[in-house]
Amino acid sequence: MNLPPPTVQWLDDSGTAFRAPGADAARPGMLDIIDQTRLPQCLHRLQLCEQQEIHAAITRLCVRGAPAIGCAAALGLAACAQRFTTTDPADFRRQLEHTAAFLNSSRPTAVNLSWALQRCLNCLTAESMPVPALQQQLLDEALAILAEDIGLCEAIGRHGLQLLQPGQGVLTHCNAGALATGGCGTALAPLYAAHQAGYNLKVFSDETRPLLQGSRLTAWELSCAGLDVTTICDSMAAQVMREGLVSLVLVGADRVAANGDTANKIGTYQLAITASYHRIPFYVAMPYSTIDRSLPSGREIPIEQRSPEEIFHCQGAKVYNPAFDVTPHELISGYITERGICRKP
Amino acid sequence: MNLPPPTVQWLDDSGTAFRAPGADAARPGMLDIIDQTRLPQCLHRLQLCEQQEIHAAITRLCVRGAPAIGCAAALGLAACAQRFTTTDPADFRRQLEHTAAFLNSSRPTAVNLSWALQRCLNCLTAESMPVPALQQQLLDEALAILAEDIGLCEAIGRHGLQLLQPGQGVLTHCNAGALATGGCGTALAPLYAAHQAGYNLKVFSDETRPLLQGSRLTAWELSCAGLDVTTICDSMAAQVMREGLVSLVLVGADRVAANGDTANKIGTYQLAITASYHRIPFYVAMPYSTIDRSLPSGREIPIEQRSPEEIFHCQGAKVYNPAFDVTPHELISGYITERGICRKP
Repeated sequence: MNLPPPTVQWLDDSGTAFRAPGADAARPGMLDIIDQTRLPQCLHRLQLCEQQEIHAAITRLCVRGAPAIGCAAALGLAACAQRFTTTDPADFRRQLEHTAAFLNSSRPTAVNLSWALQRCLNCLTAESMPVPALQQQLLDEALAILAEDIGLCEAIGRHGLQLLQPGQGVLTHCNAGALATGGCGTALAPLYAAHQAGYNLKVFSDETRPLLQGSRLTAWELSCAGLDVTTICDSMAAQVMREGLVSLVLVGADRVAANGDTANKIGTYQLAITASYHRIPFYVAMPYSTIDRSLPSGREIPIEQRSPEEIFHCQGAKVYNPAFDVTPHELISGYITERGICRKP
Repeated sequence: MNLPPPTVQWLDDSGTAFRAPGADAARPGMLDIIDQTRLPQCLHRLQLCEQQEIHAAITRLCVRGAPAIGCAAALGLAACAQRFTTTDPADFRRQLEHTAAFLNSSRPTAVNLSWALQRCLNCLTAESMPVPALQQQLLDEALAILAEDIGLCEAIGRHGLQLLQPGQGVLTHCNAGALATGGCGTALAPLYAAHQAGYNLKVFSDETRPLLQGSRLTAWELSCAGLDVTTICDSMAAQVMREGLVSLVLVGADRVAANGDTANKIGTYQLAITASYHRIPFYVAMPYSTIDRSLPSGREIPIEQRSPEEIFHCQGAKVYNPAFDVTPHELISGYITERGICRKP
């Protein structure tokens, strides 16, 4: 598939990149990521193997998007562990836990981060193994996490493709693409699948204020892969719909409650209302694990408030900056996961 | 009323400001405007009496908003005319027409601009009057245009006040305030009236991408006058409504068709859909003259496309940048003009 460059991969000391476990991936190497803070002006990659720089890369949003953060943390932990000088397995494990705890503090609320790090720690069951074998096991587990994420994205893309028609106009919000995952994204995965199938879609991308993930990241990665993408301001979606330029909306999700209410980037809810008014289908694409059955509805999802500095403001005036909103399930046409498409009964 | 500093006024050579015709306004002077390109960082006023600099101030958006442009052009023409050295009334008139034509070219599509300039030319009926009397008549007419605009705004404010309750949350879009008119605005006029009446409103102001008239101008002028104003991104309006923070939307209008369809800054239509979904009243405030009875509906209003450079964009991706949209009348609760409030039958 014609895709943008990999967001997260393992780069061994010979310069070979790996995105799945295998015998060849035994050699020492490093975490290799796109520095998203420099996009779209500059495609710069970072090679990281020190815990301080990996922590900083996650904190500074060089890598962002829950699945991508999880993959980067796992590979980062494996890279750090390859540099431990101890030959004592128990000492190795102590150092590893210390490093994992430190990396986990880089984005405290990122569920995938702690999940991926814990999974790496848990994979080391045989403490009597020599350190080089433990290091290898750790790298294999990290690469397995990445490979699984790539597989999830591909499956979401395959299922979502059923919703698309050649030449169709599709609107998306924020970035739920390759830059947010180990693979080809969630909401953008069906668009890449359609592109490969020669569908010639017309993609519209909300710029996504305040941090502009749409115009900086989504527009970049889709145009990298050769898709036809047009940036609009968030407030223009209704006009674009009225003009008949889009006939489907595809977004990602941060958390889906048991009743289908969906937390996602601020602006998603308003977009769903706008799509509903124009009778345009509105689909959410996400890994099945995003469904949090412990939450009966979206009312239980807290909305993070972020810094006023993200929005232009003038002295004397206040700023309100909710980072997410919750779209009620009645505005959502269906959910695309790796298991298939789930529509309303 | 506690208002921000005047957007447009006449400043005579003794430093006295005038906003209405009268014997005292006979003295030579200049057009005096706020330089809106420097707001909100810096409140800087420009004193202008040369046609080149007045033309540039309008082109560069130092003064913007249709009514404010009309007032500035009229006072600017009067200031230029005071510097004509001819004593021949016919020659004076020729120079005046030349200057008016030049000023009219600064914003070709601004209806108020050509209307105000033409009105100034038309006021000089007695060509036999000596030049100083013509100059005086011209200044009086320009000040009359300004005073009438101030009166329109006050009347809109008085009528709109009936819709407001003390402590209420009100959302507005773009800038239809003092900075866009000679007076206290159209959509913002009722808010100033309510503030004077001690209503303690909670005003939310959409930042209004791409040019940020909301966060730069509306937030500035309302906070100047002591109102409680909070900037949000355009995509946050639905979330703010869902949280119950606003119970009324007030916007201005660029043009209203005979059936009530309303052209206004891009994002207005999406906001009206969002308000309708939350069953929140959505009112348009404008001078009665904004109604264009020659247009049966909004379908006949062309949508201006502006430069892609106004929106952040990355190489390879396109940008779509409509400057206005049309809100269908069925989404509008009513219209506030100087004649009163017109609700749906």
